[in-house]
Amino acid sequence: MNAYPGPISRAIEELRKLPGIGRRTAQRLVLHLVAAAPGRLDRLAAALAALERDIRRCSHCHHLTDVDPCTLCTDPTREDEVICVVEQPSDLMAVEASGEYHGRYHVLHGVLDPLAGVGPDDLTVASLLQRIRREPVKEIILATNYSVEGEATAAYIVQQMQAAASTDLRISRPAQGIPAGAEVEYTDRLTLARALRGRRDFN
Amino acid sequence: MNAYPGPISRAIEELRKLPGIGRRTAQRLVLHLVAAAPGRLDRLAAALAALERDIRRCSHCHHLTDVDPCTLCTDPTREDEVICVVEQPSDLMAVEASGEYHGRYHVLHGVLDPLAGVGPDDLTVASLLQRIRREPVKEIILATNYSVEGEATAAYIVQQMQAAASTDLRISRPAQGIPAGAEVEYTDRLTLARALRGRRDFN
Repeated sequence: MNAYPGPISRAIEELRKLPGIGRRTAQRLVLHLVAAAPGRLDRLAAALAALERDIRRCSHCHHLTDVDPCTLCTDPTREDEVICVVEQPSDLMAVEASGEYHGRYHVLHGVLDPLAGVGPDDLTVASLLQRIRREPVKEIILATNYSVEGEATAAYIVQQMQAAASTDLRISRPAQGIPAGAEVEYTDRLTLARALRGRRDFN
Repeated sequence: MNAYPGPISRAIEELRKLPGIGRRTAQRLVLHLVAAAPGRLDRLAAALAALERDIRRCSHCHHLTDVDPCTLCTDPTREDEVICVVEQPSDLMAVEASGEYHGRYHVLHGVLDPLAGVGPDDLTVASLLQRIRREPVKEIILATNYSVEGEATAAYIVQQMQAAASTDLRISRPAQGIPAGAEVEYTDRLTLARALRGRRDFN
């Protein structure tokens, strides 16, 4: 039995380490790339190397950026009075894509998860508390996930903020309810209960 | 609405060009890589750049290789009398993995596909005919797929070989039949017909 030549095997091994990429997929991707137009592999390799070289966390909001502070922190058209706190950069992108939010952000880079050994010091909570003390913030939107860990993290941050900040700071959480396009019949019990509890006047 | 910083967007765009990788998967992979241990991205980038630099086609059998001729062509323990013809390098690897074959190979790098504009000159058929004339070959196993294109390609090669080679060359094709572990009831009609037509004496 024979193996692929070294460079192919090594590329397959590196790709296999990615989430959701198994041996067969990695093999298919590598063979596709080898058969692709010249320069294609070099462009992909250069794009990945540039990530390692040029991407860091914004020292202010901790979003991923290639300039520090990031363009979201320095954009003069955004509101300074509200900070949206998210778990991950991809959550920030989802909030941005909604087109509904024009304030500042703070990326936690995780959630409290004692079983996985993730405590408050592994997140950017201390830096958030500093920002609240120094910036003209009037509202914090805690947009962590509605998972056990996301809710616990939101509760922890509320507790810390109440100890640290002035009492006139509004702390909110995005509404829970029936998703757009969903049918009442097929909405799970917990979501429906929360949608009813949070019902709004018609119009 | 805001976009990811340039290096992240460019890496996502390069990954999206891969087969089976959509925008969301590419985004997930890039964010995973950015959060991964330092050096991880450089190793992946280096492995991909090495593919472009070091992998070529064997000038003899056209398998992918980092030495020319490849180790399958120069291995003195393999039989010279039989050549297994496959569509792609991944087919060669599958035949090798069977542990049942110990001869030489010839990789076509495709199949005849007039609708996609792939003709005989896009494959390595001419080089195969040369090998048959020059090497002590006694049998050609045509292990192209049992697809319309694979069968047409096999038929074309047979035609060319009969015009070019001596008449005592054996030309074969792997047996068709019921796959290992499969149930007769759930075997498709065509496969079952071919399995019956190709039935073997019970020991």
